[in-house]
Amino acid sequence: MNLDYIIPNNWSILEEGFDPDQVKASESLFSIGNGAMGQRANFEEHYSGPTFQGSYIAGVYYPDKTRVGWWKNGYPEYFAKVLNAPSWIGIDINVNNEQLDLFTCKKVENFGRELNMKEGWLSRRFKVTLKNNLELQIETKRFLSLGLDEVGAIEYAVTPLNSNVDLVITPYIDAGITNEDSNWDDAFWNISNLTVENNQAFIEAQTMKTNFHTCTFMQSECFINNQNIGLQPQVEKTDNKISFIYKTSINQNETFTIHKFGGYTVDRDHNKNELVEAAKSTLSKATTAGFAQLLENQKQAWAKIWDMADITIEGDVKAQQGIRFNIFHLNQTYSGTDATLNIGPKGFTGEKYGGSTYWDTEAYCIPFYMATKDQEVARNLLTYRYKHLEKAIENAEKLGFKNGAALYPMVTMNGEECHNEWEITFEEIHRNGAIAFAIFNYYRYTGDFSYIPEMGLEVLIGIARFWHQRANFSTNKNKYVILGVTGPNEYENNVNNNWYTNYIAKWCIDYTLETIEKVKEGHSNDFERISGKTKISHEELALWKKVADNMYFPYSEEENVYLQQDGFLDKELITVADLDQSQRPINQKWSWDRILRSPYIKQADLLQGMYFFEDKFTTEELERHFDFYEPFTVHESSLSPCVHSIQAAKLDRMDQAYTFYLRTSRLDLDDYNHEVHEGLHITSMAGTWMSIVEGFGGMRVKNDTLSFEPKIPNQWEGYSFKVNFRHQIITVSVSQNETQFILEGDKDLTIYVDGKEVSISPNNRVTV
Amino acid sequence: MNLDYIIPNNWSILEEGFDPDQVKASESLFSIGNGAMGQRANFEEHYSGPTFQGSYIAGVYYPDKTRVGWWKNGYPEYFAKVLNAPSWIGIDINVNNEQLDLFTCKKVENFGRELNMKEGWLSRRFKVTLKNNLELQIETKRFLSLGLDEVGAIEYAVTPLNSNVDLVITPYIDAGITNEDSNWDDAFWNISNLTVENNQAFIEAQTMKTNFHTCTFMQSECFINNQNIGLQPQVEKTDNKISFIYKTSINQNETFTIHKFGGYTVDRDHNKNELVEAAKSTLSKATTAGFAQLLENQKQAWAKIWDMADITIEGDVKAQQGIRFNIFHLNQTYSGTDATLNIGPKGFTGEKYGGSTYWDTEAYCIPFYMATKDQEVARNLLTYRYKHLEKAIENAEKLGFKNGAALYPMVTMNGEECHNEWEITFEEIHRNGAIAFAIFNYYRYTGDFSYIPEMGLEVLIGIARFWHQRANFSTNKNKYVILGVTGPNEYENNVNNNWYTNYIAKWCIDYTLETIEKVKEGHSNDFERISGKTKISHEELALWKKVADNMYFPYSEEENVYLQQDGFLDKELITVADLDQSQRPINQKWSWDRILRSPYIKQADLLQGMYFFEDKFTTEELERHFDFYEPFTVHESSLSPCVHSIQAAKLDRMDQAYTFYLRTSRLDLDDYNHEVHEGLHITSMAGTWMSIVEGFGGMRVKNDTLSFEPKIPNQWEGYSFKVNFRHQIITVSVSQNETQFILEGDKDLTIYVDGKEVSISPNNRVTV
Repeated sequence: MNLDYIIPNNWSILEEGFDPDQVKASESLFSIGNGAMGQRANFEEHYSGPTFQGSYIAGVYYPDKTRVGWWKNGYPEYFAKVLNAPSWIGIDINVNNEQLDLFTCKKVENFGRELNMKEGWLSRRFKVTLKNNLELQIETKRFLSLGLDEVGAIEYAVTPLNSNVDLVITPYIDAGITNEDSNWDDAFWNISNLTVENNQAFIEAQTMKTNFHTCTFMQSECFINNQNIGLQPQVEKTDNKISFIYKTSINQNETFTIHKFGGYTVDRDHNKNELVEAAKSTLSKATTAGFAQLLENQKQAWAKIWDMADITIEGDVKAQQGIRFNIFHLNQTYSGTDATLNIGPKGFTGEKYGGSTYWDTEAYCIPFYMATKDQEVARNLLTYRYKHLEKAIENAEKLGFKNGAALYPMVTMNGEECHNEWEITFEEIHRNGAIAFAIFNYYRYTGDFSYIPEMGLEVLIGIARFWHQRANFSTNKNKYVILGVTGPNEYENNVNNNWYTNYIAKWCIDYTLETIEKVKEGHSNDFERISGKTKISHEELALWKKVADNMYFPYSEEENVYLQQDGFLDKELITVADLDQSQRPINQKWSWDRILRSPYIKQADLLQGMYFFEDKFTTEELERHFDFYEPFTVHESSLSPCVHSIQAAKLDRMDQAYTFYLRTSRLDLDDYNHEVHEGLHITSMAGTWMSIVEGFGGMRVKNDTLSFEPKIPNQWEGYSFKVNFRHQIITVSVSQNETQFILEGDKDLTIYVDGKEVSISPNNRVTV
Repeated sequence: MNLDYIIPNNWSILEEGFDPDQVKASESLFSIGNGAMGQRANFEEHYSGPTFQGSYIAGVYYPDKTRVGWWKNGYPEYFAKVLNAPSWIGIDINVNNEQLDLFTCKKVENFGRELNMKEGWLSRRFKVTLKNNLELQIETKRFLSLGLDEVGAIEYAVTPLNSNVDLVITPYIDAGITNEDSNWDDAFWNISNLTVENNQAFIEAQTMKTNFHTCTFMQSECFINNQNIGLQPQVEKTDNKISFIYKTSINQNETFTIHKFGGYTVDRDHNKNELVEAAKSTLSKATTAGFAQLLENQKQAWAKIWDMADITIEGDVKAQQGIRFNIFHLNQTYSGTDATLNIGPKGFTGEKYGGSTYWDTEAYCIPFYMATKDQEVARNLLTYRYKHLEKAIENAEKLGFKNGAALYPMVTMNGEECHNEWEITFEEIHRNGAIAFAIFNYYRYTGDFSYIPEMGLEVLIGIARFWHQRANFSTNKNKYVILGVTGPNEYENNVNNNWYTNYIAKWCIDYTLETIEKVKEGHSNDFERISGKTKISHEELALWKKVADNMYFPYSEEENVYLQQDGFLDKELITVADLDQSQRPINQKWSWDRILRSPYIKQADLLQGMYFFEDKFTTEELERHFDFYEPFTVHESSLSPCVHSIQAAKLDRMDQAYTFYLRTSRLDLDDYNHEVHEGLHITSMAGTWMSIVEGFGGMRVKNDTLSFEPKIPNQWEGYSFKVNFRHQIITVSVSQNETQFILEGDKDLTIYVDGKEVSISPNNRVTV
């Protein structure tokens, strides 16, 4: 099956031709979302072929009972699962007593889909011949409103091409849904009320256990040749579904159009007893505006986002489409206005993995949101972890740690661990490091220290305590070691002295000690509060320091490189290039033991450390390690190619950087990992953004100053991006010959370009 | 809850007093079996309290769909599960319209159970006061016949003590049973026929998928004061149960007795269409003999077993009870007459673990069966693995091995893998070594080389090929290494260069090469056949040899010991003695990562290797390694204390050896591991036997000659055991002062005692 079928286009994702084998992949690729909700690109009309139905509400999850073959102490009993919500998009189409179903009809012609990223809508058109030989032209358009984020709108138009017909159009809302991802096929929803009033339908439903209250609603209007015909529906109710049945006759070549408005009100935003009222108010706003006006508003809202977040690439349409696809989905997934939400690895496009928060947020997403949004968005993401600190301490206690040591979960929705492979849950502890790094990174980029005395320092203390307790002294090595971990490279489990983990552990302690001093000096009230609460003492800090100062780092004199872990050099070091290609991806071909003892690296591991802490290593050191580890890296994690792209660019290996860029930016569009039908890789999309801004653009912040080392792949004529740096907007445009900077703001800005100081004045173009 | 309630007795397991909290534990401890079938000591009459109902037929299993949280390539889709069979023991007792139920009755007095190991029966007696104030005396006796191994018999006697009563006695057979251990609560049995003929009842049922055909049957006779009263039952049938309802009145102090005969006929022994006929024939034999004669036969059959297998211990009743309990259960579990059967770790006493065959069989059980049975029994256990060779090759192929390399499953019933924790299934590969070692050990003990050219060499070649491919050359170490394994110590996973694994891998290759030469020389026809089939070549053997000759063994110069694995010395080496006792057993208190990075050893690992290959190490070397590793060993596996007992005895540390002996022999009786309710640890019972014969008795076979180095714990006056050595029986009796040897056989035997040659003539006593 060829899944490389998306047509290159600067602003749209386009598919031509109907292939049932592609339906699930397209349902993922054409997903839409508005931060508050999202949905896979399921068809509105009935479809009996293979499909993965999914509609999701931000922050609504279900604690599914854990499924496991062999239980280990410390596993979570329950974990938060991304929850399929009642569907409001359905519109059944019946023509002369035959149901429209693309899977069983006689013929589909001229089928096309468009996900218009510029304006934020999804459309579909096709000509269909039913088994009764009726020919219909169908045109649909759908979007989830950014402005009214509880509502979505659908325009569904049917034109009979070879006969006058009797039409039955049945929009419905349906709470009789199940999860694709469910451990025990439990029911997840309690349906409490189905109400119909004035052509509006409401289903109130609550999640079991978590008790999230939701109201799913709809209202429709019917038109023939754009004239509202005031058609009244017949209402049908079952236990979990409300249908409005509209019946009419139309002539050949006349167009029947239905506008359907639907969506959710939830108790995150409203009193749980007023969800129907809230839904009525939302519907009233939506129908008053009407489909056309809502769509116009949608275009304007997206224009505003693009104005700040867009990256243009000239001369390479696939690269352009790729980066916009990434930026588009990031903005569909997370708007950053709510500190209780986070960025799920599949966003609103699938259910795999459960939970919404991984170390992806801190390691990959925060730089994107810091640079393309108000800095409050990144601060909200940090606050999210602060709010989970107590749970992280409980989690560490379950694993035998004490005295306020915090281990953040590998995967979470509410602060509790969601994962239960021991080698991940209990051992992939480096996640704690990324959470500390994000605090450092936020302050480095924004200059906003206030988060640290207010919240961040407590997080840092919990994390430093964890590392102090987790390391143990090896008399054999006369150093502190960290045994039994899984590094970012999940293709090695339970290894000793993973360099990345040891490095970030030491860094966390050092940074926490330094930060404690800084808070003590500059924010003594906060310091008193925090030290009273955490009961840190000089003695304890001295013990931390001893561990940090004496941390062990595996190193090979012979290879002149740090070792990814103690045993790396004993492996059979056959490079990926020399590996039989029929064996790839190895995670689909090999048993786990074989993967583990192979030298193949799933994603940047030691190189991830050299990316985070690049100032601590010379370019020559980076080059040596890149040359050693890149040849063993299979990039079977979505999070891998972006880091390698950035480092290849830094090493002036632009062809390689470009290849990695394509891989990260078109990972889903070209389905590199053969899994796009399960949903998109949302968090790695932020890595794509980094590979342009940090990789090609060479953007860094050092000593409160932006610096750039612009480079450009041979394949491109030029590219440009914008960043928000401390409330001023800098546009950077790079061509093969020069780089231009434009500043929107109110004061002069000094930056460094290729190491040279450059001053930019507001609204002045500077060319370097 | 105190589970140390079994009353010491030389020949019986005794319990006094009724405690519902003890019911499940006693159901395990008082289990009975006859090699063909077995059952937990469930009550015959209805019991509404917590109970674990289990009745098992040898070789009847079910391929349950695998349950797993996170799938890994290579996991088995299905695996063989020990299967609860239809029950034939039930006898409901109703007195004056009230059901006898020990859980809900008013009072139970003078409750006692006896498992008479000498004679092979289980009895129970108690006085019960029902809620209607009726007082009854109940006496029951039950056994599974060794002579007629399809049948069991129950004598159930009821005496009303304070009134004349109306009695309803309902023996039944019931196929409406479920498994305690089931992954998906699937139904496992199809019931095809329920038949009643001449007071005999038959339920024919087949296992789903595996399609084992069984017939469960019963017949009963009723007596008052030992007079057969010819009572005729009313018959009741449901979809899965046949009941015979006997109604009568009896006077106060009269005794009503029912003899119930029941059991199974199975298509392993009969044509599947003739199971009812076979059952009739069996029932006819059983009822003709009658309960008393069957019981007499049972005593004689057990007397014959004990005559050969008994170990006596004088002056220590708990030690005596322990060893007999072990020998008794081993003989109940496996008689050795059928090469398709094996020794499940829980025998017929529970369902945990699934599968029936572990490396326990080769490492622990074969020595016991070789010495206490005809050598055919051990040969059958070896043949079992030969018959699974093709499946072991397929299993290895799934994991990426080729060219006939064989990896035997960790757990199996039919040759297919039954386990799915990656760190066990894919990595605990040392099991392959034990299978090769058993071939060596069988020949060493019996002198019967014939198995090797006939079957064993093919097994050895498959295993040698596996080790050759599994090792890889480390340029770093300039040696072959074996990465990513779990050794016998399952508290370390995915370690590199587990000494035991590397050692046995090298040994397997060396032994196979040596054996190939021997077969080539002495059995050229077999050699031609085998080399034609396996296509071994000089080139291939040379490659194997290179691996064996250059195998890496981790060693510490400083500690002067081999290391259990590469990273062992980096651990925090706090001994078990210094570990907070509230943290034990660590497998119930600690998360898995904490266990893995601790130095605690679940069971003999490196010391297991020094046990197998003791001739390769000096006593001083053993002592050094014992002193190094014993202090870290927590013995949380049932297979551990026996090996440490043997080695402590060898090192003349008799107090320690005695402590380990008690731990291994009374593991279940005193419930060291807090899990006896799940069933008994059958395979480790053979280790208990070894700890006396090899540990205290110091028995070895070297150069076709038996040798002994008898020692005796201070706590004992004397002990004796018998071994069958090459068709002659040697009785060894050890006291504090001397050792006596008696030979039953037909030719003189030269043995070594404490290194000195001793000659024994048949039927002569030799005292040393």
